[in-house]
Amino acid sequence: MFEIQGFRAAAVKSGIRGKDRLDLGLIVSDIPASAAGVFTTNRVKAAPVLLGRERLQGGRVQAILVNSGIANACTGAVGLRQARICGAMAADALGISPELVQLSSTGVIGMALDVEGFRRAIPRLIAALNGGAGADDKAALGLKAVARAIMTTDLVPKTAVRNLSLDGVAVKIAALAKGSGMIMPDMATMLCFILTDAAVKPELLRRMLRSAVAASFNRITVDGDTSPNDTVLLLANGRSGAPLLAAGSPAQIVFQQHLDDLCRDLARQVVRDGEGATKLVTVRVEGATNQAEADRAARTIANSSLVKTAFFGEDANWGRIISALGRSGAVFNPEAVGIAFNDVVMVQNGVGLGAAAEKRATEVLRGQEFTVTVNLRAGGAAAECLTCDFSFDYVRINAAYRS
Amino acid sequence: MFEIQGFRAAAVKSGIRGKDRLDLGLIVSDIPASAAGVFTTNRVKAAPVLLGRERLQGGRVQAILVNSGIANACTGAVGLRQARICGAMAADALGISPELVQLSSTGVIGMALDVEGFRRAIPRLIAALNGGAGADDKAALGLKAVARAIMTTDLVPKTAVRNLSLDGVAVKIAALAKGSGMIMPDMATMLCFILTDAAVKPELLRRMLRSAVAASFNRITVDGDTSPNDTVLLLANGRSGAPLLAAGSPAQIVFQQHLDDLCRDLARQVVRDGEGATKLVTVRVEGATNQAEADRAARTIANSSLVKTAFFGEDANWGRIISALGRSGAVFNPEAVGIAFNDVVMVQNGVGLGAAAEKRATEVLRGQEFTVTVNLRAGGAAAECLTCDFSFDYVRINAAYRS
Repeated sequence: MFEIQGFRAAAVKSGIRGKDRLDLGLIVSDIPASAAGVFTTNRVKAAPVLLGRERLQGGRVQAILVNSGIANACTGAVGLRQARICGAMAADALGISPELVQLSSTGVIGMALDVEGFRRAIPRLIAALNGGAGADDKAALGLKAVARAIMTTDLVPKTAVRNLSLDGVAVKIAALAKGSGMIMPDMATMLCFILTDAAVKPELLRRMLRSAVAASFNRITVDGDTSPNDTVLLLANGRSGAPLLAAGSPAQIVFQQHLDDLCRDLARQVVRDGEGATKLVTVRVEGATNQAEADRAARTIANSSLVKTAFFGEDANWGRIISALGRSGAVFNPEAVGIAFNDVVMVQNGVGLGAAAEKRATEVLRGQEFTVTVNLRAGGAAAECLTCDFSFDYVRINAAYRS
Repeated sequence: MFEIQGFRAAAVKSGIRGKDRLDLGLIVSDIPASAAGVFTTNRVKAAPVLLGRERLQGGRVQAILVNSGIANACTGAVGLRQARICGAMAADALGISPELVQLSSTGVIGMALDVEGFRRAIPRLIAALNGGAGADDKAALGLKAVARAIMTTDLVPKTAVRNLSLDGVAVKIAALAKGSGMIMPDMATMLCFILTDAAVKPELLRRMLRSAVAASFNRITVDGDTSPNDTVLLLANGRSGAPLLAAGSPAQIVFQQHLDDLCRDLARQVVRDGEGATKLVTVRVEGATNQAEADRAARTIANSSLVKTAFFGEDANWGRIISALGRSGAVFNPEAVGIAFNDVVMVQNGVGLGAAAEKRATEVLRGQEFTVTVNLRAGGAAAECLTCDFSFDYVRINAAYRS
């Protein structure tokens, strides 16, 4: 069961994206939840991000109102005002303080929200929340409906759930995410909402979220581009009855493990559903002199258009991998480098191992999922980055996205 | 006339790339020429680059032997030895010191040179040089033939020539280049050979070449990837009879201007022939706080896959431009940014100007060539980067390049 105690969710077809698509979602906690968030590091920040960051300083969130189709980014003072108005409408209808409402938007940059559309849709959203969705094909109940409502170029909704036991009490973490294009590491990529009925104070929640994001969403790339709307929110309403999570306790370790695991699961779903993607590839760099260089090397390879088109062509073209490595800024001796596709070593001491190795590597590339391991043999640091291939469909989707 | 006094050139079909393609070229100066070179900044350097860098320390070059089809990169000690052997064969045949021979290769990384193929081809190359090419359809005389022989995914050969007067003496600069994929700023991108009959000492030649490259080849990108083989060589044989170029003289300024202009011309030809390119786009960032940030911003926009696919789709999607800007690291206030396509202003103070502006901008994008100007309104620095769009053909070419 995907639902989680003390949280309700619903989505409606508000008309932003035509008549037949869920495009507006609402998630509500019965009581103000402890909350933490990670937002885009892009210097250009969407109105809902600016507003959300400000409101999150209080560490409490009771509702998340999210739409797809329009990003409400680069909309200036008007966009900020419209976000406040839409949030206030939801707060009024729910009878809560507007400061407890987080807004989130994803879609075309530069377009203004249709405030009147929100005004018409919010009562239907609340009705659906209260169980009135069954009779109305324009609304749907539950977190899965919200996961569908926030899709843009996504082909599948992305959800994950973990069940754990904290001090003997059953606790749940449920999450939903969207993301397919404008995805790249080094920030909170895409939209992701994580809900738990554990009891955690905002400060600890923040720390745990940052740690989980660093090892998941910040380690993926689809196209090297980052969005002004990226947001990950984590809400904890304590309704499980588990005791307040203590920093450094065994229960915190258990919670962090499950949170990490859940975030990695969703990050993986995002890359698997990368725009036009046909392959899911883990780029692992080991033997680097330090963590930063391992990281930079893995990301440079994972973002190279030439490497990614070779993956699409199922071409074990290690020359492009070593070329990307060479411009990454990582320090290494080119004559020491090793490269393997899964367990097939193709390059040793910087030199290719020939046709037989290449043939076996090509077999690996025929699979939908594989790992490229690059060993710099310069030190002990390692890093991974999850990426996808670069296909005709990526170009098709992005040459036509707005038209 | 493309030929230049005191230099001869020829190319043959050596068989590296099948029977029907010119793939091996030779350029010879009658006397040892003063020479300067700029090589890849990629940490992984091809054998001919390692050898060429070493030999260029003497500041003299008499012959350039260049092949396409095989890059002789990541070939270790064997590749270096093979480059030396092939260079020595050419030196022997020409009766000059091997130290005066520069080697250059472009093609598939990791493949070894076919030394026996070189052994068979070099006598034919020398025969062609000496005027024996007319009767042989397997060889061709002149720099244009070499320009054809070094093409890989290039669709057209790239050449440029400038005629100038130094202290009243007619001087010529002629150049040929190749490059279409694995092209990105911040190094000497691709192969380029520049010949002049001016008389210039190596040290001054080096300074002038570095300056010209910084403003031309280092300001272009096709796909953000850099090659281990990138090389620009400038040879001056003094055969025009013009006096030795003096640093700081009016003649030096004239020569530098023509050299800059010629390099920009070739850089432009490389981007126009970018893999799969249908548009030539100048990304200009102005109003930056300093040069480095202007540069970084222009390059980040020019390398964004989302921006480049939008160009291909003729979509005036400024949201992607401002998003790329936001992750570039340049410091600016998002609410001050202006964006224009040619003279059509689309964004003012960070906000889009609406449907009418967009319609006019879309007209601009229908053209084969246009300029995107981004004004950060943060300072006085500006930078340009030349890029192309990202099309289905880029994916087709690179998914299939080796197969």
